[in-house]
Amino acid sequence: MILLGLDPGLGTTGWGLIRAEGNRLSHLANGQLKTDAKAPLARRLAHLDTMLAALIADRAPEAAAVEEVFANSNPQSTLKLGQARGVALCALARTGLEVGEYAPRLVKKAVVGTGTAEKAQVHAMVARLLPGARIAGADAADALAVAICHAHHLASARRTF
Amino acid sequence: MILLGLDPGLGTTGWGLIRAEGNRLSHLANGQLKTDAKAPLARRLAHLDTMLAALIADRAPEAAAVEEVFANSNPQSTLKLGQARGVALCALARTGLEVGEYAPRLVKKAVVGTGTAEKAQVHAMVARLLPGARIAGADAADALAVAICHAHHLASARRTF
Repeated sequence: MILLGLDPGLGTTGWGLIRAEGNRLSHLANGQLKTDAKAPLARRLAHLDTMLAALIADRAPEAAAVEEVFANSNPQSTLKLGQARGVALCALARTGLEVGEYAPRLVKKAVVGTGTAEKAQVHAMVARLLPGARIAGADAADALAVAICHAHHLASARRTF
Repeated sequence: MILLGLDPGLGTTGWGLIRAEGNRLSHLANGQLKTDAKAPLARRLAHLDTMLAALIADRAPEAAAVEEVFANSNPQSTLKLGQARGVALCALARTGLEVGEYAPRLVKKAVVGTGTAEKAQVHAMVARLLPGARIAGADAADALAVAICHAHHLASARRTF
């Protein structure tokens, strides 16, 4: 099964594509989509939407996941992030994909084994779990982490049946 | 010129369509788009996107505007609103429309004449400025208000040249 993880942001959206066969995971691709900070907001969001639609059409993932966000202390940042996240969730659901959403704590736990891991630890474990992956940056690493979390979740859901 | 105003929300998105000829405004249509509160978030956003795309294709507005949002005191509400707003801005920009954004204070000033007007006053003035309009609800009234504000803005921008 091919899984797409996304870490949405208005400036940079990380994406990570992995293959899961039972408990075996392998890296397929990852990258970061950037919008022009000088362009008007609506145009940036439409650009992000176009890039995501092309990515999904090109890579044909069978499942997708996005990290849940907790509103942070800066309401204007929360609003910006919300706008990009809305476009990302919409781009996924529009193609008929079910979208898994995971709290940051669950993503950390799936990747590192503890919900309180540091970001650097998560990134190091992503690189270890997906040998050979050249990771495009921190947002791509976060996207791969949420894809890994989704793969674990789907695998254990299957075991339940 | 046909102008579309939107008041985006995850549960209810108001829309209002007006015609502006110089300083003369007339009402064309308004309504409220609703998503199913019981559906998953990504599906609700994709549903909103589909309804907006159909509305824009059907009504062919030549200009569009959305109120700016100020993050409110509840960060989770800000995030929800941001997600719906991102989808709305994206749906407009994807069709090539330029999107005007106006602070709530400017919308009130354009409609009532003062930036500190109450919501009820704004709605009463929208009904007076667009005689014959049957307004679908508070969100549709807000959407018509932002369309009126955009019409005033475009008219005064034209006078400047």
